[in-house]
Formats: sequence, structure tokens, C-alpha cells
Amino acid sequence: MIRVGIYGYGNLGRGIECAIKQNPDMELVAVFTRREPSSVKILTEGVSVYKTEEALNMTDKIDVMILCGGSAKDLPVQTPYLAKYFNVVDSFDTHAKIPEHFANVDKSCKESHKVGIISCGWDPGMFSLNRLYASCILPEGKDYTFWGKGVSQGHSDAIRRVDGVKNGKQYTIPVDKALDAVRSGVNPELTTREKHIRECFVVSEDGADLERIEKEIKEMPNYFADYDTTVHFISEEELIRDHSGIPHGGFVIRSGKTGWDKENNHIIEYSLKLDSNPEFTASAIVAYARACARLAGEGQYGAKTVFDIAPSYLSLLSGEEIRKNML
Amino acid sequence: MIRVGIYGYGNLGRGIECAIKQNPDMELVAVFTRREPSSVKILTEGVSVYKTEEALNMTDKIDVMILCGGSAKDLPVQTPYLAKYFNVVDSFDTHAKIPEHFANVDKSCKESHKVGIISCGWDPGMFSLNRLYASCILPEGKDYTFWGKGVSQGHSDAIRRVDGVKNGKQYTIPVDKALDAVRSGVNPELTTREKHIRECFVVSEDGADLERIEKEIKEMPNYFADYDTTVHFISEEELIRDHSGIPHGGFVIRSGKTGWDKENNHIIEYSLKLDSNPEFTASAIVAYARACARLAGEGQYGAKTVFDIAPSYLSLLSGEEIRKNML
Repeated sequence: MIRVGIYGYGNLGRGIECAIKQNPDMELVAVFTRREPSSVKILTEGVSVYKTEEALNMTDKIDVMILCGGSAKDLPVQTPYLAKYFNVVDSFDTHAKIPEHFANVDKSCKESHKVGIISCGWDPGMFSLNRLYASCILPEGKDYTFWGKGVSQGHSDAIRRVDGVKNGKQYTIPVDKALDAVRSGVNPELTTREKHIRECFVVSEDGADLERIEKEIKEMPNYFADYDTTVHFISEEELIRDHSGIPHGGFVIRSGKTGWDKENNHIIEYSLKLDSNPEFTASAIVAYARACARLAGEGQYGAKTVFDIAPSYLSLLSGEEIRKNML
Repeated sequence: MIRVGIYGYGNLGRGIECAIKQNPDMELVAVFTRREPSSVKILTEGVSVYKTEEALNMTDKIDVMILCGGSAKDLPVQTPYLAKYFNVVDSFDTHAKIPEHFANVDKSCKESHKVGIISCGWDPGMFSLNRLYASCILPEGKDYTFWGKGVSQGHSDAIRRVDGVKNGKQYTIPVDKALDAVRSGVNPELTTREKHIRECFVVSEDGADLERIEKEIKEMPNYFADYDTTVHFISEEELIRDHSGIPHGGFVIRSGKTGWDKENNHIIEYSLKLDSNPEFTASAIVAYARACARLAGEGQYGAKTVFDIAPSYLSLLSGEEIRKNML
């Protein structure tokens, strides 16, 4: 059994807990939280919740610690720190800071003789893998990543900060026309506006100026100004009834040429359609937690990403079984 | 530079030659053929064609030998044999015999201290990878593989063996309704007939009995009897004009559940749309030839499949570069 600890219990931590239940070689041994442990109710019977400070007392009881904090403030500190004591997996997703995060985690892991897998999930994660595989197979080509339809947490937060807004959700939606152009093999140059639209569902405060709210959202720099944005005002009940889920997904498409004179075109497309973004991310992380335990068992210490890990390490099945049944 | 030899020069061998041209760290050093070498014209200037028997004289000039023979008779003998002298990559695709082939190649490689990557391409190959990744992420789910639209060489050959048939091409086509059912997440049980249809374009001999030919094709066991098959009689000119390409492709879809009570559904879909089946297969093989050379350099001898190879081994770029640009 691979003994797993969950460090941080929000949507992602809860998703990890659910994913562990689906993997018979894994066992949840502890959940760590910054909140008062008695206030945190988890789903798994017989498993205790501890304060984060208590983690270091359990280094001999946990094979892999899965970090479920945020990329902005938590993981840059927590992952390198916990990698001094545990094999760790995180879902660090600030793309621009990955090299720095990798270096920090690698340093800890090399000193502690642990394995640290960073940036697991779907983007970074499965989308990254598909960008890599596709670009290696079709070196003369072009990559496109589209996100959605799905809820963007950052953009939903931005809406909620607008004066007069009580609540709101934002969906990122890929533009069908752009997807079709990419799939046609013409390798279009696409602007930000051409690739995605943004759809907002907003609950306003009583008596708020809806026109001003809509204008303020649509013109918000970085978040909405570069996109075609639609704003729908709805009631709180409608928001709860129709927009409580956390769906997401997207497409990674590579279009490339082969042949002596580049006469043949090929389209490689990978897509995800997810009812629950955090649960899918968690499911990918848990598969890599298995790889983490195995790599540690082999003494392959250091920081790793999905690029560094042979696919067979993710599987509960033996090499013989996967060759026989999946190759 | 990775020095590559091509062993067998049909559609696949020619595709390998084209793919090498797109990879600046690779160099074609020799083509080996069972035909009279002077009768084989290749595309790359300054590269010689040799008889297959001469390969063993060039063990010090070739880093990776890519085998381009057929899976029925050539590769079961050639790959284990050449793996005694070279690092090898093949595209062995008789799924049922992969375990045996793997064992034979592994034995040779372990004795010779070489690396042998078998069953590269897209199915087996990229489709296998996607079946594995998706099943590890969504253990509670179901896999579906659809092929096409594309030319099936085996079925085209079968048509041409029917009495009164001068020439013919067969397309395997996935059924849209089945694809849609899978994508909806209902995890349907699909029969062979529900998943694919077969479309045949047939050029008949003068005065042949078209009704009998059509009946014979449609009722042919193993090949057509289990499918809804359509037969179109066309002229030789039409066949050459409209059906000379070797397109193919397909879909690997996994539909799975997550959540404490399996309340959320997820669809992972990987698809290929290929103008040239052999050139795409060759492009995947060449990426794995790079991995083969690197694994050999590290002393990781033995037989491998796509499951055993970390994605970073396929890339010309460094670990830093792929983390920075693709993660």
C-alpha cells in the first residue's frame, strides 16, 4: 500500500481523497490543515485531521505527501519545505515560475533523498504532455491550446471585486470558428480575441447600476478587455441552481506537415471535457503519486515533472499486463 | 548526430527518410533492401542503398536501425536478429503477439547490450499511450478505440482477392452515432457493427458479375460479414484520381467517473486525422529512435515499448527548455 497524506483540504484536497478511494493500492493516512482540525470534516472514515505543524511528526507514516495549496502563495514555500521530509506531489500552475519552483524543489529533494513531482494535473500536466509528444512527432507544425468551456476561478474572482456585484461566475469558451480553422490544417495566426470568448453570470446588489457594472467588467484590463465578453445578470437562485459546478476542459491541437516536400498534413487533437476540474486534477495527481512512490523506491531522487516519468510508472498493472492489454 | 539506418524501403521506409530530414540531430547513413540495390531510388542525396546482408558490416556506422518490414513475416525474425548487432526500433503491430515479440527482442538486447523499442507508431503507439494515461487517471471508466476514416490495407487486399475484381480500396469509418454516445458519458456497450462501417471502392474486370462481387465482399467472414458494408463500383481512373492516398486516423476515448459517489463524469479524447498513415507512423518511430539512442547511451539495455520511455527522451530540447516552454 502507498500511504498518502493530504496537505490542505479545499476542493483539490477533497478530490484527492475521492481519487484515493478509486485506487486499491493507496491508502489515505492523514489530512493536514491550517484550520482548526476539529472544524474540518473529511469523507474517509477512521482517518484523522491534523494541524499542518504536526506533519513532521509523521514522516515515517507517509510515503507520499500531496500538496493541495494554491500556486500563488502556498506551494512556492510548502513544496520545497515539505520535500525535505517527504516525497511530494503538487499541482503548481504558475507557468512562468515553473523553472524557479523546479530548482527549489530539486535542491530539497537532492539533499533529503526524496522525489518531488511538480505541476501535475491537466494544464500543466496532461496538456503539457500532449504538447510535448505532438511536437516531437510533428516537428514541422504548430501547437494550439484552447481552454474551456469552463469556470475560471481568477476571472470569477475579478467579477466579484466589481462594485455593486454580489456574486458571479465566469466561463471561458473556445471559439468554434478558431477550432475549426486549426483543425483544417491551415495553421492560422489567432489573436487572443479570436481564440476564446468570456461569458459572465452576475448577481448584482439591489439598485446597482447594471450598465456601469457591465462596462466595468468588459473593459477590465488583463481579464476581459482583450476578449469578446458577454455579461448576463441573473438572480442568486439562478446562479446557485445553474452555475454551482466547476466544469472545465479544453483542447491541445497540433497541426503539422510530413513528406519530402511537406505535402501531407496531420492533426493531433487531445481534448478534455470535465464535470469537475478539481476532481480531475486530483485524479491525475494521484496517478503521479503512485509514480512518486515507485521512483522513490528506486532511488531516483530529485524534482520531476510529467515529462520525466515513463507512463508505465502510473499504472497499477505490471509491464506484462499493460503490454498485453493496452499496447 | 544520431546515425540512422533504414531496413526495408517501402512506404514506411520512405516515410522514415522524410522524417529524418525534419530532425536536425539525425542523419540517414544507409538504406538496406532485399531488392537489387541499384533498382531502389531513394530521396536523400549521397546516401547509399545496400543489400540487407551487408548491414552487419556497418555496426559501427549506425546508432539506430529502424526496421520497416511487415509484422506478419518480417519483424518477428528481423527485430530479434538485428537487435543482436544494433539498437533497433520497429512498428510491430500484431497486438496478440506483442508479448512473444517483446520477449524475443528483450533476450537479444540483454545479450548484446542494445536497446530495442518495439511497436512504435500510432496503434500500437500513441493510441496505446493514451489508453494507458487515461485509464490511470480515471480508473473507474471505460475505453473506446475507433479507427478511421482511413484505408485498411488488409481489407483492401481482401477485396482484390475476390474473383472479377481488378483493383479496390477499403475505408474503415467510425460511426458518428457511436462516437456521440461515447462522448455523452453513458458508457455504451457497442457491437462491432455499431462502431465502424466499411466502404469499398471496387474496379471490376470487364464483364464481371457485379452483384456476385458485392455479395461476396459483404459476406466475407472476419473481414466484412460483421459490418455494414457499402460497395461502390468505379472506374480505374476514378480509383487512381480519388483514392490513391493512404489517409487514416481514429479516436481513443475514455469516459470515467470521479467523486465520492461517482457523481462527476469526465471525457478524455485523443484523435488523429492523418493524410498519410505511413508518414505519420514513421514520424512517431523517428522520435522514438532519438529515445533509443539516448537510452543506449545511458546503458538502459533491453526491449522497451512506448510505456517504458519518459516523454522527455523524445525531444531534441533540454529538460530546462521543455519545462520552460511546454509545461
